[in-house]
Amino acid sequence: MKLYTADKARITGGFWGEKQALLQKVTAKSIYDRFAETGRFNALICRKEEGMPQPHIFWDSDTAKWIEGTACLLMREKSPELEALCDGLIETIAANQMEDGYFNSYYQAIEIENRFTQYINHELYCLGHMIEAAVAYDQATGKKQLLEVCEKYIALVDRVFRVEHSAAFDTPGHEEIELALFKLYQHTGDEKYMTLMRYFVDTRGTSPRDITYEALGRSDYSQTHKPVREQDTVEGHCVRALYLYSAMADQAAHDQDEALANACRKLYRNCVDKRMYITGAVGSTYLGESFTVDYDLGNHEAYAETCASLALALFCRRMLQLDVKGEYMDTAELALYNGALSGMSLSGDAFFYENPLSYSPTRASIANRYTKARAHSAIGQRVKVFECSCCPPNVLRVYGAIQEFVFGEGEDDLYVHMMADAYAHTKYGILQQRTDYPRQGETTIYPPEGTYTLHIRVPAWAEEPVLCVNGLRHDFTIQDGYIHLTGEWDADATVELRFSMPVRFIYANPRVSADAGKVCVARGPVIYCLEGADNGDNLSDIRLRTDGSARVVTDGKFGLPIITLPGSRSVPGDYPLYAVSPVPRSAVDLIFIPFYAWANRGENEMDVWVRTET
Amino acid sequence: MKLYTADKARITGGFWGEKQALLQKVTAKSIYDRFAETGRFNALICRKEEGMPQPHIFWDSDTAKWIEGTACLLMREKSPELEALCDGLIETIAANQMEDGYFNSYYQAIEIENRFTQYINHELYCLGHMIEAAVAYDQATGKKQLLEVCEKYIALVDRVFRVEHSAAFDTPGHEEIELALFKLYQHTGDEKYMTLMRYFVDTRGTSPRDITYEALGRSDYSQTHKPVREQDTVEGHCVRALYLYSAMADQAAHDQDEALANACRKLYRNCVDKRMYITGAVGSTYLGESFTVDYDLGNHEAYAETCASLALALFCRRMLQLDVKGEYMDTAELALYNGALSGMSLSGDAFFYENPLSYSPTRASIANRYTKARAHSAIGQRVKVFECSCCPPNVLRVYGAIQEFVFGEGEDDLYVHMMADAYAHTKYGILQQRTDYPRQGETTIYPPEGTYTLHIRVPAWAEEPVLCVNGLRHDFTIQDGYIHLTGEWDADATVELRFSMPVRFIYANPRVSADAGKVCVARGPVIYCLEGADNGDNLSDIRLRTDGSARVVTDGKFGLPIITLPGSRSVPGDYPLYAVSPVPRSAVDLIFIPFYAWANRGENEMDVWVRTET
Repeated sequence: MKLYTADKARITGGFWGEKQALLQKVTAKSIYDRFAETGRFNALICRKEEGMPQPHIFWDSDTAKWIEGTACLLMREKSPELEALCDGLIETIAANQMEDGYFNSYYQAIEIENRFTQYINHELYCLGHMIEAAVAYDQATGKKQLLEVCEKYIALVDRVFRVEHSAAFDTPGHEEIELALFKLYQHTGDEKYMTLMRYFVDTRGTSPRDITYEALGRSDYSQTHKPVREQDTVEGHCVRALYLYSAMADQAAHDQDEALANACRKLYRNCVDKRMYITGAVGSTYLGESFTVDYDLGNHEAYAETCASLALALFCRRMLQLDVKGEYMDTAELALYNGALSGMSLSGDAFFYENPLSYSPTRASIANRYTKARAHSAIGQRVKVFECSCCPPNVLRVYGAIQEFVFGEGEDDLYVHMMADAYAHTKYGILQQRTDYPRQGETTIYPPEGTYTLHIRVPAWAEEPVLCVNGLRHDFTIQDGYIHLTGEWDADATVELRFSMPVRFIYANPRVSADAGKVCVARGPVIYCLEGADNGDNLSDIRLRTDGSARVVTDGKFGLPIITLPGSRSVPGDYPLYAVSPVPRSAVDLIFIPFYAWANRGENEMDVWVRTET
Repeated sequence: MKLYTADKARITGGFWGEKQALLQKVTAKSIYDRFAETGRFNALICRKEEGMPQPHIFWDSDTAKWIEGTACLLMREKSPELEALCDGLIETIAANQMEDGYFNSYYQAIEIENRFTQYINHELYCLGHMIEAAVAYDQATGKKQLLEVCEKYIALVDRVFRVEHSAAFDTPGHEEIELALFKLYQHTGDEKYMTLMRYFVDTRGTSPRDITYEALGRSDYSQTHKPVREQDTVEGHCVRALYLYSAMADQAAHDQDEALANACRKLYRNCVDKRMYITGAVGSTYLGESFTVDYDLGNHEAYAETCASLALALFCRRMLQLDVKGEYMDTAELALYNGALSGMSLSGDAFFYENPLSYSPTRASIANRYTKARAHSAIGQRVKVFECSCCPPNVLRVYGAIQEFVFGEGEDDLYVHMMADAYAHTKYGILQQRTDYPRQGETTIYPPEGTYTLHIRVPAWAEEPVLCVNGLRHDFTIQDGYIHLTGEWDADATVELRFSMPVRFIYANPRVSADAGKVCVARGPVIYCLEGADNGDNLSDIRLRTDGSARVVTDGKFGLPIITLPGSRSVPGDYPLYAVSPVPRSAVDLIFIPFYAWANRGENEMDVWVRTET
């Protein structure tokens, strides 16, 4: 089974349609302007000039991700303005590429003599993102200038790294180019990109020259602690890790490499069964932006980088190509609707790098007041640009191409992996879906004419699913998360899937000490939270009744309903610090909003996990 | 009212008698040996020599506190060996004092040209401790050599700081000398020490030259943010703060300075009502070892330095001299039986610097693995000596002189402030007390012959107190925490006080988010905790039933009873990370041990605050 690439499918409306419209209307230009203001685009001339800020080692990746995301939006709807901006950037990059193919705005301007010598820097990571941008821009516009720049640069990298071993290290310090090379291989059909990708994946963890950050003192920071086929726990920097695992899954599927596939399966299991937040976020510590150990899932300590949730979704998409199991898409949806989506404001122009599951302005002010960069708190209001601004353009490119998650095809098969108002160009013709999910749990699928098996995913949490084929109730079984319908499909066939999405209380494993005595509220794939704006401050005092009835209230503000549930909090008063009797409590209605929508009404408290009354 | 100094009272048995015997038998020599090994005593020659480690700026204070503590033990029981060790140290100090009176092993060896120029260093703090040692050693042995060294040094300090202002700063960067000068004034009657003390206290917070650590960027770190009479919240480094407040209370009582007394009262209230842990510990962050903000009382984040709890007890003792109110001694007992006492192992030779209210080896290993000095966790096993080893000799000197907390006298008054097996030499004769407190809630007092009011403190938490005078039940009222018995006392009079000490559940204010949904278990002045050794690991999973009955079981291991209470924990099993139903639970007996006794059976989990069942 292969999922369709962004150019082969389209979001046509519904929840994701609204988000993509926002990306196109607001986000793309907003990020462009912030990047222009901060000098990221000027830096592409690759020269040090008076008054220009020094480029960062990862700036080229910001530019590339912006081009890639914008390219995906251009597939959706033409925009001469956005296309001209892309053309301008690509022109500058091409004009400043070195004779031998090298391009890096930091090294060329600052220390060209040190290119390919610093394992910890981001040269190959930047090239990876340029490759992904080049493929997307070609798909969107047919323009190949950036592709040519990349192919020339890759030829240099192939020679220096794979053939001559003349670089000071052997594999990328920050993975990304591996999966980009695979994408380029699929786009061009040129085996040499597969060869280089395979070289980087297979060499990882075997070379003593690939040292990791001294400061962190950890060889697993960049996953060089073991050969990749021996890795079985997710370790180190989350984004690095999940980009590597994504490439491993691509390679395993392509090469039918069972050893590599099994490593991917073990890594997925460890990630999702032991180290993932309920929001589909990963990264329990800001130190190294990394995984820590099993069940270490502190809520306010969560780093939960937007890019890491996006990377988890990308990994799940590739695991699905390896093994068609619904749970991969369940996890991808968790990340896409929650841990990653909270990275962007409802207005589309402000961002979070970190997405903790609990926030308190008081706690943050203590961290800021007493630390001076020695301890850490997430911020509580989204901002327009970061010094390390990987997340905003990553949001742009992943949500700009979210149609890549919806449909897939196999030999005699079509797949509906995700409920979304969308269609795809399949080998049988147009496969269409109309749905208002996740507002409601129902979708109508219009399969193209032909004889094949239609596989429809039913989320694991869906209750009482009902299937109608051509308007008639149809019995079914669910296997690995999918309904399988084999048959001859007429041109006007319809398949309707309905299920209920009651409010759920989720309990964490008893080993997650941060969540002891607490529950989290969810509906469908969406995780909810309490916010101070609705529930007053001192949220930790709140207790939720799990025996009460939930009201699901449509609310225009957040794009999805809000949920009210009964609970209690302390009667206001002036109480001693310590007392031998508990403070009296009174019943209150608690208002839960989608987690992704928090921090859109100023800085205030937020909690995903809430103490229960009994 | 004045409390008796260490030389005027004696502990004769009971809980504190056992502790003092341990200090004398084990602790004093053990600390001496560790200090000798680490070069602290060699450093007293004040020269840089081949192979000697560079002295720390605070080493002289370690030496001084050791002498002071040992002097207190010598008052209790002669020991030619310990006295000879003290004599040797004092001899070396005297031999290396500079011509003009200066003595500091760090500055003399390393950078004498910079003496009195570095606000952040500890010159005057070291002198303060030397003064306290000198007074105690004179009281214990009548030997005055160290006193003479100090008096000569103080003359220099008085000239440089108070008269000439020729130092680079105006008040001590680390307070301590103020209360030491007061002690010396009381010991010698020489007004000039009171004058210098008053100069330091009154000048604090008025001089722009008294800058604080740049790194912390805070003028309240060393309490220089406001003139002392305007300070109303406890701020900055806890030990610095509480030593200052102690001196302020001394000065306020001596000078009958109401403005200063009111500042002390406000500071005490803020400390105890908003910023103190239930263990009598203070210091919510290791960053600057400092107070943070009201209700910020995280349990595993607690710094809760041993010295800070000791300093709080010392401050309470002085507040009691300002206003005879039982609550000061209630607080002092909290610190002395809990937050400070946990600083020493049951074996008497290993120590904690920090005394968090929750500890988990897993959490600590994460902090250590991912941080390299950038984040922080307390340690979970006591050690013999620290690089900054202020706590062990502070334990020695405060518990070595704990009789200073027990009795006091006024014009026509005698006071029993603390239940302890002890006596004091009063102006009326011997005032004696026999008790097994806090094992049981009863004491027998033997007042000396005379006509005066006997004031006996009844702890605020005591239930159903009963008083017998000369064997007969006696009606009484409690005012400000004291029973007041005015009369003519015969030579054979007895006063018996009994009360019950049931197990109490303590609830924290709803604003303390760390303790939401939890209780702490206490009996008398002693706070209890769960430890992994008794209750298995993953303590955060445990829930306590507050409607069950407690069993108080005498246990030889910890010096006080253990307490068993009913509770529950998850049935062992392999559960998913997240699930829509809670894990089944089963009833268990929970074993609580005194908090001070934790970490005497290897490294394991510990929790003071425990989630409740309902």
